[in-house]
Amino acid sequence: MAAGNLQCRGFMLKFLGLYLLTYLQYYSQIAEARIRHYKWDVKYEYKSPDCYKKLVITINGRTPGPTIVAQQNDTIIVEVKNSLITENLAIHWHGIRQRETPWSDGTEGVTQCPILPGETFKYQFKVDRPGTYLYHAHYGMQRTAGLYGLIRVSVPDGDSEPFAYDYDRSIILNDWYHNSTYEQATGLSSTNFVWVGEPQSLLIHGKGKFNCSSTVASSPSWVCNESNPECSPYVITVIPGKTYRLRIASLTALSALSFEIEGHNMTVVEADGHNVEPFVVKNLYIYSGETYSVLIKADQAPSRNYWMTTNVVSRIPKTSAGLAILNYYPNHPRRSPPTVPPTGPIWNDTEPRLAQSQAIKSHQSYIHSPPPTSDRVIVFLNTQNTIDGYRRWSVNNVSFNLPHTPYLVALKLNLHHVFEQTRPRTGYDFKNYDIYRKHNNSNATSSNAIYRLHFNATVDIILQNANTMNDNDSETHPWHLHGHDFWVLGHGKGKFDIYKDPRQYNLVNPIMKNTVPLHPYGWTALRFKADNPGVWAFHCHIESHFYMGMGVVFEEGIERVGNLPSSIMGCGDTRGLGRP
Amino acid sequence: MAAGNLQCRGFMLKFLGLYLLTYLQYYSQIAEARIRHYKWDVKYEYKSPDCYKKLVITINGRTPGPTIVAQQNDTIIVEVKNSLITENLAIHWHGIRQRETPWSDGTEGVTQCPILPGETFKYQFKVDRPGTYLYHAHYGMQRTAGLYGLIRVSVPDGDSEPFAYDYDRSIILNDWYHNSTYEQATGLSSTNFVWVGEPQSLLIHGKGKFNCSSTVASSPSWVCNESNPECSPYVITVIPGKTYRLRIASLTALSALSFEIEGHNMTVVEADGHNVEPFVVKNLYIYSGETYSVLIKADQAPSRNYWMTTNVVSRIPKTSAGLAILNYYPNHPRRSPPTVPPTGPIWNDTEPRLAQSQAIKSHQSYIHSPPPTSDRVIVFLNTQNTIDGYRRWSVNNVSFNLPHTPYLVALKLNLHHVFEQTRPRTGYDFKNYDIYRKHNNSNATSSNAIYRLHFNATVDIILQNANTMNDNDSETHPWHLHGHDFWVLGHGKGKFDIYKDPRQYNLVNPIMKNTVPLHPYGWTALRFKADNPGVWAFHCHIESHFYMGMGVVFEEGIERVGNLPSSIMGCGDTRGLGRP
Repeated sequence: MAAGNLQCRGFMLKFLGLYLLTYLQYYSQIAEARIRHYKWDVKYEYKSPDCYKKLVITINGRTPGPTIVAQQNDTIIVEVKNSLITENLAIHWHGIRQRETPWSDGTEGVTQCPILPGETFKYQFKVDRPGTYLYHAHYGMQRTAGLYGLIRVSVPDGDSEPFAYDYDRSIILNDWYHNSTYEQATGLSSTNFVWVGEPQSLLIHGKGKFNCSSTVASSPSWVCNESNPECSPYVITVIPGKTYRLRIASLTALSALSFEIEGHNMTVVEADGHNVEPFVVKNLYIYSGETYSVLIKADQAPSRNYWMTTNVVSRIPKTSAGLAILNYYPNHPRRSPPTVPPTGPIWNDTEPRLAQSQAIKSHQSYIHSPPPTSDRVIVFLNTQNTIDGYRRWSVNNVSFNLPHTPYLVALKLNLHHVFEQTRPRTGYDFKNYDIYRKHNNSNATSSNAIYRLHFNATVDIILQNANTMNDNDSETHPWHLHGHDFWVLGHGKGKFDIYKDPRQYNLVNPIMKNTVPLHPYGWTALRFKADNPGVWAFHCHIESHFYMGMGVVFEEGIERVGNLPSSIMGCGDTRGLGRP
Repeated sequence: MAAGNLQCRGFMLKFLGLYLLTYLQYYSQIAEARIRHYKWDVKYEYKSPDCYKKLVITINGRTPGPTIVAQQNDTIIVEVKNSLITENLAIHWHGIRQRETPWSDGTEGVTQCPILPGETFKYQFKVDRPGTYLYHAHYGMQRTAGLYGLIRVSVPDGDSEPFAYDYDRSIILNDWYHNSTYEQATGLSSTNFVWVGEPQSLLIHGKGKFNCSSTVASSPSWVCNESNPECSPYVITVIPGKTYRLRIASLTALSALSFEIEGHNMTVVEADGHNVEPFVVKNLYIYSGETYSVLIKADQAPSRNYWMTTNVVSRIPKTSAGLAILNYYPNHPRRSPPTVPPTGPIWNDTEPRLAQSQAIKSHQSYIHSPPPTSDRVIVFLNTQNTIDGYRRWSVNNVSFNLPHTPYLVALKLNLHHVFEQTRPRTGYDFKNYDIYRKHNNSNATSSNAIYRLHFNATVDIILQNANTMNDNDSETHPWHLHGHDFWVLGHGKGKFDIYKDPRQYNLVNPIMKNTVPLHPYGWTALRFKADNPGVWAFHCHIESHFYMGMGVVFEEGIERVGNLPSSIMGCGDTRGLGRP
């Protein structure tokens, strides 16, 4: 009896244990893999982000759009309804690698056909890493119309980050134009070239302040009204003594920015979803497509508010600073700080920007070691050119243009006639090309040929800057890679020396990023594993630069890509392949 | 031998005769059925039609687009390449009945999916009658961006018209706005309704003159420049003593117009492709979507030039007159006439407009007799409404909206779920509805249900005007029917009396038209044969009115429609049906 009882108890315990285990597994599965379902209606609306009323693209009535808040390993489903009237749409999930879902990358012409007015497109992907990411339109120059927002992915329950804070806040920086994306794009793609010019204002989390009386043609008050509540400054309220994580992102169309908080140092702890070995800055340089997390402590005199400001760097600033308020509770959130806002660093001093780029290293406990060598090195010389009378940007004298049949479908279904099958150039004339001199670059061409990479190959990319078509001018280009993070092996000045400079590569604790600046007259070296089956754009994140051809496309492991959803088809040579 | 020779000669003569006959048949076939092939590139460009620089949609660099010149029974092929950047496209061939080619009507949502950027769509149709027709965008409010032009179809060789002239000239009238179609459409479709307002200028054949110093916010000279040659007035040069056929068409977005030529009477000889029993006018009233031919004789003092002017009628004019120059050779074509331009008729006097509408009868030698009775009578009460907070236009209290799957495809392929299957109303509460009073019309609804007509039925349409949502206000609505001409049986004042008014119908020599005005507080009675298999829009030709729901759709003989080309498919529920 006793033995039998014991046996029975043992069995019951085992059963209970099994049950508990199953239950826990089930529970943890739910906890780890929630589905976050969003329904977005995208349309044109009149808004006054910087007090000047103009047509913007909104998501559910808002610009910036809603922040997607998720936890690592969640699945995000966004059903996007296109309610633009005659205009198509595509949304890119910036920094999300789209592993096993390359068709959800949202890059028109690369991974999908555009979404037609009246149609609803379902984006579905996993957020497999914690961190700060972005989303924005990726079609023509649609991003500048205001379709953008933030993705915040937290660590799984029980996990923690290597830094501590009390509250988590977000700031998206942007620059803002009063003319339409159509007007900009038409000017850029005319033989009678019209440059977009400097932005009219800088927005901090969708709010700026345009000087309504500053226009050549001063606007009536229903067009520009500085007391419109829509453009009251963005406010972050802090409790004295507490520590705040600020997620700072930039989606500027053109501007490189410096961001600072009057009287507060910032400790950089995250860059593009990767933990950074903490370092302290007074001002954060941030380039379009980048995200950072910084920690600030509300440790200043609590009787007043403080300015948060952003300023243009790297171009002669013709745009006044963007201003927001760090509000010390319980001061009134609208109360202006008693001080003059910080004026920001000198715009044309590249040194501190280069230094900050070089200071960003992987957190020592989160190092993903890069492969020690690469299988392939591609050098990209960044130049301006005139091709058939059009002003263009090029890499290695080739200016990129998108086909109207998405590469992903064309490659998977062997529709090889829809784009050029030549192999694009992997370098330039290192020996003879003077990067400090204005060149004609008259042998430039346009092409939609792509780079085909061996699956799992380790690829090094050397971005080489040069002089533009203006004398003594070299610009900052933030390059963004879809579908991957890359290791940032180094930033340097002048012409990259393929023999000498690789010795300086940081192979110990390089940060991984998806967007990285190429500084004026400098070089940036990257390494990545071509381990994500799909087709991926790599381009300058300045909206007008990519529109003018500053980008390339990589294919890797196309044969490993699963069945394509028909929803990405329907345009170009995929007409008739879009059956729902 | 002689007999043999004769036989041989006879055979040879017969053979020669046969050869000649075949040759002549072949030749006349060519002559009668030429193919006119056009390749059009449609894109955005900066233009200054009225001296104010703005983005317009051009065809091969021009607005108005190229005039299509053809002969009766020619086949027109237009390959339209959409080079708009992110925007779709559709082009309607206004007045062309599209018999046996209902898929070439170019009406987005009715007969086709829109043409995507980068794609080329082939319109192919027969111009089976001589006369003056139009083409223009038929998607959203795209027409107002400048995509429009003229079609001139001449009589076959050997045929003649019942009027004589030395030269043939064209004039398209238009009104012009400085804001974009996006801005207009967004304002109209917001709960915070913004009306498009009166146009900034009137264009005669694509040229107007905006008073650059008149703006509230005066514009810099690179935006508005009255000495820009792009906006120099349109000139028609005439040789003294000669007779000119002027083909006058209106494609205004909003305005009803009066057109006159200083010192010259005009003899109206054609309306919408039909010969008119000639009558003389000092000024021609013309409504959006109408075309007329008038004859003028250059019989005035030849030492000077004369004004051609167009003025707004039926709305309080806030737009200055459109001006062009009738240049008497050999005076300088740019020389301004020495006189003040004619000021046009009183804007709010409906009587002469009604009288002119009633004066238009079929030429006695070209009468197509209407069927003496009809099989079906549909009455359309034209009202303004508020539906769910949106300002709308309605017929019989139903405001029309387009589905995103074209009706033509949906009906042919039995995709009945893509639009409402209810039968829309065929009348209103005649007895109790006071057309002179402002109404709430609070029971109005939106719908995309359509009118299904028995094939070959004779259908009467009574357009009934009423008061708008403003006190003492009734507007002029030019109604345009696709796929047919209709007989204009009568125009009247006040509420149509279904018992009494049909007795006044003109069944003897009614003009046939495709567009007809409905005058303020009046009625217009039409008759047509539902003998053209297809799906056809019937709508107010004021761009903003149709956009706000002022239209219906007729289906007839869908089972007789031939195989649909896949090129019209690819959107909505026809995704995947667009295989080239």
